[in-house]
Amino acid sequence: MLEALLASVHTIFPDSATYFIPASAVVSIIFAVWLWGRVSAVRVAPATHTRSENGREYLLEEEQRGEDEVVQKAADLQDAIAEGANSFLFTEYKYMAVFMVGFSAVIFVLLSSEDGFALKFHTDESGVSRAPAIYNGGFSTVSFLLGGSTSILSGWLGMRIATYANARTALEARKGIAAAFSVAFRSGAVMGFLLAGNGLLVLYLTILVYRRIFGEDWAGLYEAIAGYGLGGSSIALFGRVGGGIYTKAADVGADLVGKVEKDIPEDDPRNPAVIADNVGDNVGDIAGMGSDLFGSFAESTCAALVISSVSTLGSEHIYTAMSYPLLISATGIVCCLLTTFLATDIKPARLVSEIEASLKLQLIVSTVLATPAVFAITYCALPATFSGIFTEDPSRLVRNWHVFFCVATGLWGGLIIGLFTEYFTSNRYQPVQDVAEACKTGAATNIIFGLALGYKSAIIPCIVIATAIYISFSLAHMYGIACAALGMLTTLATGLAIDAYGPISDNAGGIAEMAAMGDDIRERTDALDAAGNTTAAIGKGFAIGSAALVSLALFGAYVTQAGITVKDSSILDPEVFAGLLVGAMLPYWFSAMTMKSVGKAALAMVEEVRRQFNTIQGLMDGTARPDYRQCVEISTQASLSEMIPPGALVMLSPVVVGVLFGTRTLAGLLAGALVSGVQMAVSMSNTGGAWDNAKKYVEAGASEHARSMGGKGSDVHKAAVVGDTVGDPLKDTSGPSLNILIKLMAVESLVFAPFFKAHTANGLIFQYFN
Amino acid sequence: MLEALLASVHTIFPDSATYFIPASAVVSIIFAVWLWGRVSAVRVAPATHTRSENGREYLLEEEQRGEDEVVQKAADLQDAIAEGANSFLFTEYKYMAVFMVGFSAVIFVLLSSEDGFALKFHTDESGVSRAPAIYNGGFSTVSFLLGGSTSILSGWLGMRIATYANARTALEARKGIAAAFSVAFRSGAVMGFLLAGNGLLVLYLTILVYRRIFGEDWAGLYEAIAGYGLGGSSIALFGRVGGGIYTKAADVGADLVGKVEKDIPEDDPRNPAVIADNVGDNVGDIAGMGSDLFGSFAESTCAALVISSVSTLGSEHIYTAMSYPLLISATGIVCCLLTTFLATDIKPARLVSEIEASLKLQLIVSTVLATPAVFAITYCALPATFSGIFTEDPSRLVRNWHVFFCVATGLWGGLIIGLFTEYFTSNRYQPVQDVAEACKTGAATNIIFGLALGYKSAIIPCIVIATAIYISFSLAHMYGIACAALGMLTTLATGLAIDAYGPISDNAGGIAEMAAMGDDIRERTDALDAAGNTTAAIGKGFAIGSAALVSLALFGAYVTQAGITVKDSSILDPEVFAGLLVGAMLPYWFSAMTMKSVGKAALAMVEEVRRQFNTIQGLMDGTARPDYRQCVEISTQASLSEMIPPGALVMLSPVVVGVLFGTRTLAGLLAGALVSGVQMAVSMSNTGGAWDNAKKYVEAGASEHARSMGGKGSDVHKAAVVGDTVGDPLKDTSGPSLNILIKLMAVESLVFAPFFKAHTANGLIFQYFN
Repeated sequence: MLEALLASVHTIFPDSATYFIPASAVVSIIFAVWLWGRVSAVRVAPATHTRSENGREYLLEEEQRGEDEVVQKAADLQDAIAEGANSFLFTEYKYMAVFMVGFSAVIFVLLSSEDGFALKFHTDESGVSRAPAIYNGGFSTVSFLLGGSTSILSGWLGMRIATYANARTALEARKGIAAAFSVAFRSGAVMGFLLAGNGLLVLYLTILVYRRIFGEDWAGLYEAIAGYGLGGSSIALFGRVGGGIYTKAADVGADLVGKVEKDIPEDDPRNPAVIADNVGDNVGDIAGMGSDLFGSFAESTCAALVISSVSTLGSEHIYTAMSYPLLISATGIVCCLLTTFLATDIKPARLVSEIEASLKLQLIVSTVLATPAVFAITYCALPATFSGIFTEDPSRLVRNWHVFFCVATGLWGGLIIGLFTEYFTSNRYQPVQDVAEACKTGAATNIIFGLALGYKSAIIPCIVIATAIYISFSLAHMYGIACAALGMLTTLATGLAIDAYGPISDNAGGIAEMAAMGDDIRERTDALDAAGNTTAAIGKGFAIGSAALVSLALFGAYVTQAGITVKDSSILDPEVFAGLLVGAMLPYWFSAMTMKSVGKAALAMVEEVRRQFNTIQGLMDGTARPDYRQCVEISTQASLSEMIPPGALVMLSPVVVGVLFGTRTLAGLLAGALVSGVQMAVSMSNTGGAWDNAKKYVEAGASEHARSMGGKGSDVHKAAVVGDTVGDPLKDTSGPSLNILIKLMAVESLVFAPFFKAHTANGLIFQYFN
Repeated sequence: MLEALLASVHTIFPDSATYFIPASAVVSIIFAVWLWGRVSAVRVAPATHTRSENGREYLLEEEQRGEDEVVQKAADLQDAIAEGANSFLFTEYKYMAVFMVGFSAVIFVLLSSEDGFALKFHTDESGVSRAPAIYNGGFSTVSFLLGGSTSILSGWLGMRIATYANARTALEARKGIAAAFSVAFRSGAVMGFLLAGNGLLVLYLTILVYRRIFGEDWAGLYEAIAGYGLGGSSIALFGRVGGGIYTKAADVGADLVGKVEKDIPEDDPRNPAVIADNVGDNVGDIAGMGSDLFGSFAESTCAALVISSVSTLGSEHIYTAMSYPLLISATGIVCCLLTTFLATDIKPARLVSEIEASLKLQLIVSTVLATPAVFAITYCALPATFSGIFTEDPSRLVRNWHVFFCVATGLWGGLIIGLFTEYFTSNRYQPVQDVAEACKTGAATNIIFGLALGYKSAIIPCIVIATAIYISFSLAHMYGIACAALGMLTTLATGLAIDAYGPISDNAGGIAEMAAMGDDIRERTDALDAAGNTTAAIGKGFAIGSAALVSLALFGAYVTQAGITVKDSSILDPEVFAGLLVGAMLPYWFSAMTMKSVGKAALAMVEEVRRQFNTIQGLMDGTARPDYRQCVEISTQASLSEMIPPGALVMLSPVVVGVLFGTRTLAGLLAGALVSGVQMAVSMSNTGGAWDNAKKYVEAGASEHARSMGGKGSDVHKAAVVGDTVGDPLKDTSGPSLNILIKLMAVESLVFAPFFKAHTANGLIFQYFN
């Protein structure tokens, strides 16, 4: 019955199911704009005083004036933060533009050179007309630029929304937890839905246009689309690393002088680095995270497309089935959209204790909703069986429910990772409380316990990812892995929303402190922020989990494109094993650079903050204003110059290894970086999150145990602050950048695979010796 | 001419070259005993007072009496430390004995069951008489027990020598640097040569006996010998983990209360944990290191023997060539022996600045000497060509100079790793000075810079190991890897000597402080100790480098025994990849356990030390004695109970994975643990070493820059102490234990490979689903 109906619809509108993709993307964007409207209902301009002339309100006049002052101050602070973030991002974009132009040239030349810049289509052995390599070069370059621009747009929009929402959240906190939570969460959701919708729409339109150009050469079409993922991730690299260094240089520098030396509270307006610190939250955590997850989405979609283009779906030109990866994302958007109402309208958090549960519920409900929806779309979009996915046994059939299973393992695997991350980083559970307890004997035991916690927290995510890989790989080879990655990203919009919620709350706390809104307001924003630390860790769990799956899928696509057989990729091959070992080292090298960059930049910041405290008279007693601009400048310069070496390491490693040591060594390198990077990224993120929340646990004193530690200013608190400071670069610079390291190296290898295969399959150095 | 001579010798004494093995082992032991004699020339009993009645010395009588008191105190302390170490080791050995008996039963049953406990020899397809599986089971068990016992003996002897030498070193320090250095170094050398000689001799004799039993079934013979490596490494596991927890619980606990809370110096006799701390150096660093390197030696020899037994060397029964791995070690002993005179007699260190150089020279000279010696022995022992090494292409020829190249890459690779480790952990170079500089802004930046240093220090060792693997693998497959590992261990005796030198000097410092020998003596022992930290890090670099090569060789032997083909071990196989990912996680899980164990035990120690300071009246002003025994008891109990979970993780993982998920997943697991564990071990060891020496740099104030930090008691110093404390478990518990994790899992897989192959090749769980 249903099948007959579907069949008749198919006859009238071929590929009609794919219309769901742009429809859902557009709905997502409209929904985001509508939410933005609701956020902007909160006014940050002082009330016009005509109202106070109204007889009914004259008693409030005096209070109103005080209120007005607070509102005005909040508005000023928001402007200062937005201006700082804007100016940093634009400076960063100039660097990125130079990089993108340069790298575009590299892509174009290397890829077009494969057949000596031939211009004509040719017919391959199976009678399909194939585009010349210059098409791949040219349109890969276009996709690269599109992916990069979309990523930039995503990061920038996220930053705009966050800096629009921070003061509003702080002001709403005067009304209570519920109001503030709503503003912060809605703003996060604006970012989530804008990014998800925008990324999907651009990709959909690009494919539509490329179809006209590539004709029946679908393998060529989707190979050229892979540049979209590369563009997305290379921008994410600079966004994560540059933004990460910016934010943590400011944060660490501000804390070291402010909290430790001068004993003034966090976000105190007397601290010269305080604006830079708040700007950092927006450019690092928000814009960086946006670019990162956009990159994951773009890459997993591209990996799935490239792999399936050589299956019967591609060779028989079944467009709806080919669009299945995009359909999963479209389905996810709708499920997340419905779930959002739960937090904003049906059951918003009203008490401190409800905040974390409310955010967690978002993830659980969207996962539950998405499961049957994905099942339905799988049956609609995919044929009952198809083949050509298993490279070693191309005739082996893949069934549509196999693919559903792959998506489901990713979807539910992501949830499990999220929940375990919460367990290890929330101060409502034992692990973080143990770390806080260790602060009683000083900073050293705090660090030892925190590191141990991070190491331990890698166990479950790793087993979940390994299980997802085993199941998906067995059912549908690398296509299965790509689908599992997409499954984990089905709840992308929700994930981004709860993730962006964190830095917005953090900024709101900063503004509340700086605008002197009072201790009760600050306590509320701190509670929002503590939940935000946990959701940020959950978001990082998702980001790394999906990055692992995405990288493996890209790795699979690379292996296919580079013509590496199963026998060629044995761990018993000396080239592969050497690659594996060096690959496993790359995350360490990369982290050494990023950690040291933060350290160096923080030291420069400390010098400047100390200088201002020493030379500006009246700064400590609040009669003189610090020079915020100078600190913003230091963070900007440090992050821009320091992001280049780690960026170069990631961008150059695949090319250097591929050219000098050949495709097999590169395969080992990618696998090694993947398996080692996952552990490091998870443990760094969770260690950092746990330290931050252990400190908040000591500060908040919400339980008998917590109060026994003495609260702010005690020795226990000082020890906790050391942990928090060490955790900053771990959780916000090095850890999250590792996701991008593993993804970007894989996608870059994929894009350059035809070049390596044609010219340096055995490596120039190895060729020389053999 | 030479060849003709050799040929005629061969005819008269077949396999005469192999006599060199026991000869060199015996010489090594005699040399060690002779050195011990020289060390014991230093008297630790007070002078008999008859001498002072001699007219010429009466003026010195008063001084002599003070001296006598110091000597008596040093002797008492030495006795207390030796007694504590002895009693801990014997308690530990009881646990080990239970484990060994239990595990022997497992080995015997699992291996003998392969052919249903048949008792008769059978003839295989090539006409060779093969021993039944029960022979493998029985004699593997015997080798296992022998390896374990030799390892126990090695550790115990090392501890005896170290506790014999510590007071002597402190007393000699009164005469000057040169005298103290000589005692410490000679004692280290006693340990090095005893261990190297003893290990080699036992293995040689075992093979001699087994030859009579196994007859012409050499594959069976050497398979049964592999148990020797397993025994050595399982004892090393408990030695490293148990000893590591013991030493660091005491060290961290003593520092946290003594240095941080009570502001009394390190090793102050008022600190109740001080004896436990000094005992710990002997049971953890000395006995643990001895067992570890003995394990590496035993395993790499076994791996080389197993692999070559299936080559033409084994099938054609060329005994001298088969003994080549033992000959390398024998050659190494002789070269190290000659080198030792350089430090003890020809050019001993006379000034503080010469200590480190003198120790480094040992490594360089022994490497230089060993190169031509190994070349000569290779030409004498190996036929010009042999084959059967390359599993995929058994007819491919391996030339003797190929094998020499493999040994040389290991030999020189070890030196390079050693020198780079020195660069990253000695406070004479920039990296550690940068870490010290970071202490100026507090503990947090110290931790950040230290972690970054450790990550960075993994780059070169990793590239060196990868290069050695690539070259050796290409030239002589897994046999080449095993030979590279043996090459790195050629300088084992020297490595152990300079490594054991460290804890001896550390203890000497402790005794100097406790016996109140005065600040100048303490300064000398501190200088000896600082060099010791560096050489300890170098030793750890060797240990991890050789562990990586050994594990890979064992992995290769496992793959051969388990019948895994190149195609079966592709990283594109879902089982292999899932194994790879989970394997890379195991070092994190393991480290989480060991770090937390140290943390927990240290907290218990802190409680006890605080309790004693609070309840024992007169402890702070030195009129009452603390209860040292109670602290020794806490360390003992903590380490014994805490070593079981990490031990179980390592011992059970290969069996569980092999049985439930099959041999291919296990192959992935081993490779993953290897590539991830190497990075972690290197960075942990070097981070810890750097923090320790950064602290010493601040304390010693040997340069303008160092003095600018304020010395002991300043804020900078306090920040440095936090780093040192965090580094303790990293460098002495978790890091070095990881070596054993990767080796032990590999050798265990090798020993059980026939069982897995026969019963669970595809894994019980996977079989169920397929």
